[in-house]
Amino acid sequence: MGPSGAVRHATGSQPGRAGGSARAVTRTLTDDPLGGTVRRTVLPSGLRVLTEAIPAMRSVSFGIWVAVGSRDETGPQGGAAHFLEHLLFKGTRKRTALDISSEIEAVGGETNAFTTKEYTTYYARVLDEDLPLAIDVMCDLVADSVLEAADVETERAVILEEIAMHDDEPGDEVHDLFARAVYGDHPLGRLISGTEETVTPMTRRQIQSFYRRRYTAPEIVIAAAGNLDHAAVVKLVRQALRGTPLDAEPAAPAPRRPETPAVRTKPAATLVEPKETEQAHVILGCPGIDRTDERRFALGVLNNVLGGGMSSRLFQEIRERRGLAYSVYSYASQYADSGLFAVYAGCAPGKVDEVLELTRAELARVAADGITEDELARGKGMSKGSFVLGLEDTGSRMSRLAKGELLYGDLMPVDELLARVDAVTLEDVNALAADLLGRPMSLAVVGPFGENDFSA
Amino acid sequence: MGPSGAVRHATGSQPGRAGGSARAVTRTLTDDPLGGTVRRTVLPSGLRVLTEAIPAMRSVSFGIWVAVGSRDETGPQGGAAHFLEHLLFKGTRKRTALDISSEIEAVGGETNAFTTKEYTTYYARVLDEDLPLAIDVMCDLVADSVLEAADVETERAVILEEIAMHDDEPGDEVHDLFARAVYGDHPLGRLISGTEETVTPMTRRQIQSFYRRRYTAPEIVIAAAGNLDHAAVVKLVRQALRGTPLDAEPAAPAPRRPETPAVRTKPAATLVEPKETEQAHVILGCPGIDRTDERRFALGVLNNVLGGGMSSRLFQEIRERRGLAYSVYSYASQYADSGLFAVYAGCAPGKVDEVLELTRAELARVAADGITEDELARGKGMSKGSFVLGLEDTGSRMSRLAKGELLYGDLMPVDELLARVDAVTLEDVNALAADLLGRPMSLAVVGPFGENDFSA
Repeated sequence: MGPSGAVRHATGSQPGRAGGSARAVTRTLTDDPLGGTVRRTVLPSGLRVLTEAIPAMRSVSFGIWVAVGSRDETGPQGGAAHFLEHLLFKGTRKRTALDISSEIEAVGGETNAFTTKEYTTYYARVLDEDLPLAIDVMCDLVADSVLEAADVETERAVILEEIAMHDDEPGDEVHDLFARAVYGDHPLGRLISGTEETVTPMTRRQIQSFYRRRYTAPEIVIAAAGNLDHAAVVKLVRQALRGTPLDAEPAAPAPRRPETPAVRTKPAATLVEPKETEQAHVILGCPGIDRTDERRFALGVLNNVLGGGMSSRLFQEIRERRGLAYSVYSYASQYADSGLFAVYAGCAPGKVDEVLELTRAELARVAADGITEDELARGKGMSKGSFVLGLEDTGSRMSRLAKGELLYGDLMPVDELLARVDAVTLEDVNALAADLLGRPMSLAVVGPFGENDFSA
Repeated sequence: MGPSGAVRHATGSQPGRAGGSARAVTRTLTDDPLGGTVRRTVLPSGLRVLTEAIPAMRSVSFGIWVAVGSRDETGPQGGAAHFLEHLLFKGTRKRTALDISSEIEAVGGETNAFTTKEYTTYYARVLDEDLPLAIDVMCDLVADSVLEAADVETERAVILEEIAMHDDEPGDEVHDLFARAVYGDHPLGRLISGTEETVTPMTRRQIQSFYRRRYTAPEIVIAAAGNLDHAAVVKLVRQALRGTPLDAEPAAPAPRRPETPAVRTKPAATLVEPKETEQAHVILGCPGIDRTDERRFALGVLNNVLGGGMSSRLFQEIRERRGLAYSVYSYASQYADSGLFAVYAGCAPGKVDEVLELTRAELARVAADGITEDELARGKGMSKGSFVLGLEDTGSRMSRLAKGELLYGDLMPVDELLARVDAVTLEDVNALAADLLGRPMSLAVVGPFGENDFSA
């Protein structure tokens, strides 16, 4: 983002560090009955505050987004971003863990957090009258957590339980295995939670250092959407951060994210996790496109047509016509400098070969012959409709503001986004399909197999 | 409901079969910035249509709710309601399965269905301009599905995959095991999906018979919420149902749901499902209260305080202070004539004894000493806040209309519901705690144990 380079974006603009000047932008969505108005302010510290005022709503979603995730860890730090996310809820100089949760829950609000490979998010959803409370609590815990040594030990045990829980969910586990198949030892191939081996020896000092070096004002975007007033939100945020480490520009910029190897040139890999499950959980896929790749709108359409819904080719072929799987779908993930495109299926172990054969055949068919005009229209309808339907919820709108700022350096107006989808042509989709679906495919399988059962 | 007795409700009123007269009720929510207006019409067939017009929203959620679920099956029919729910998407006299999904998905809408123990729901969420399409498609598939023999075979395979998938999720499986521990062979103790043993031999004729006997107009509630016009919705529903089996009053009322044994008097049971999981998945609990029990508001508060959030006693004790579990929570389920109250925890197998001991001690403490005034206030805040926050979404509002009508025979206005929560006293909660938490507790465990490891 701007000076730190922690997240790259296409425009090359410098959204942070506007020298303390408050640039306010108003964007009114055409044909938006909820009438959202977006405003943006950069604080002197470099921290950015974006809001969308939606007077028809009664709630506000408030989020603090930090441009650091598991890919910013070195190998031995594996899980540090996620460990820190847990610890921030354990207490600040002003509040115990119980204070934090009970203040929000007493007014019926909800709060939570999640860590991804590229960012970490803390959020609350409350009634509009409780927004000042939510701002105070959330800013306090993100800016001024104490990381007590005893809490580090308790939370280490909780995280090891979380890792064990995840290991009991083969349908989730296979996604991690697939990331490893594509990215190998690259940071994008590692577990967000870390592993028992990295979490067990992690020290308070390591986590504290990660916190202070990474959680700096220019790396943070605060976003809120709902029945709110922008100036009031900015004022409350400044009050809540006063006297904390986020009140000033950092002494040094956050470390740059290391350059990423060109994952596309890696050979495809097959990984099998032998496990006595009822179903085989299978992912077949390849490196995709970057988050800012202009072809992402075409990819959305392609994904919808291939495996994005019940009318998609893979769902129709594998579930509706043949009854081979309950769950089968394709998906695209995008990162700053990389991406994935893949197909998941859960099926009886004896049917994996058939499911894989059908999937490969369908991918090859689309790579060779493309999709139809009807499919193009349906794929665009899905992209636009699900986007617009997603705008009715303050949480989604808050996320849209923050992701636009954090990941793209700008917020694409709704009308422009819809126009970009509309502009996708059959040639765009078919050219992308020919490129993407012809790539060597990696395979991940969790199920009752041996490690070499799929090495053909 | 009313004449059929398919779902009992407290008032004893006869909401269906109003002789074809259209009773329209308007309820405007006080202090509702979205300004919802509720209206209700009973068609000549006995089918009820409820809508909530919310002009500020751009979407509409449309649902068809049928008062039949897995508890209405005899033992050998186990899974018939769920099997039928799958089959209705496979084609009508007018549409193929692909038509059904592609018509909705082409406009960016989403559609799905679920089966519970007491009702089955089919729903779609679309942009307001696409509501006529959604009504036509959803009414067609629920009223006029053909249940082709070949589709029965394909979908049987899909359901067997769904059952296998469920068996790979021990955190879900333990909930079914717990229901069996409490209810035994009672229909409420059986799996909604049925089992491989009941689904494999089920014939098209059995499912067809279940469909025609159970899916009758007086057993169905249609609900919609969003930017809509009530009269237009009623007209579109009538058009869509014209000439289908739901166009007329049924020849005979739906079969009465059999009387339920008094589950409260059953001895507590312990069931263990041995499985090589990383975590032990544990549920400890007892029979609770009926859906219409006046103490349900006090139970909501008690549940919030015991294990309903991060500030709850069990979360604080088991996760925050001791780090014994990642996930620990209590919950209450309510049925027409029964209920459950239980605590779930997922923890290392070696820590189950400690988690169970802490849980039993906390339940006993609350049974003996009750909760505090502070906890009462927080518990009420949670109930009210989460309810009001849930009103911002057309899907939740649609469900509220349908559940009110189907399960309670009436819609409780928002203000009354909030007042009922406000009226809960410390004495109410403590009397309920003393009754409920002193009951013999059943236990369900999925994990690396023997079947008799917990028979103390």
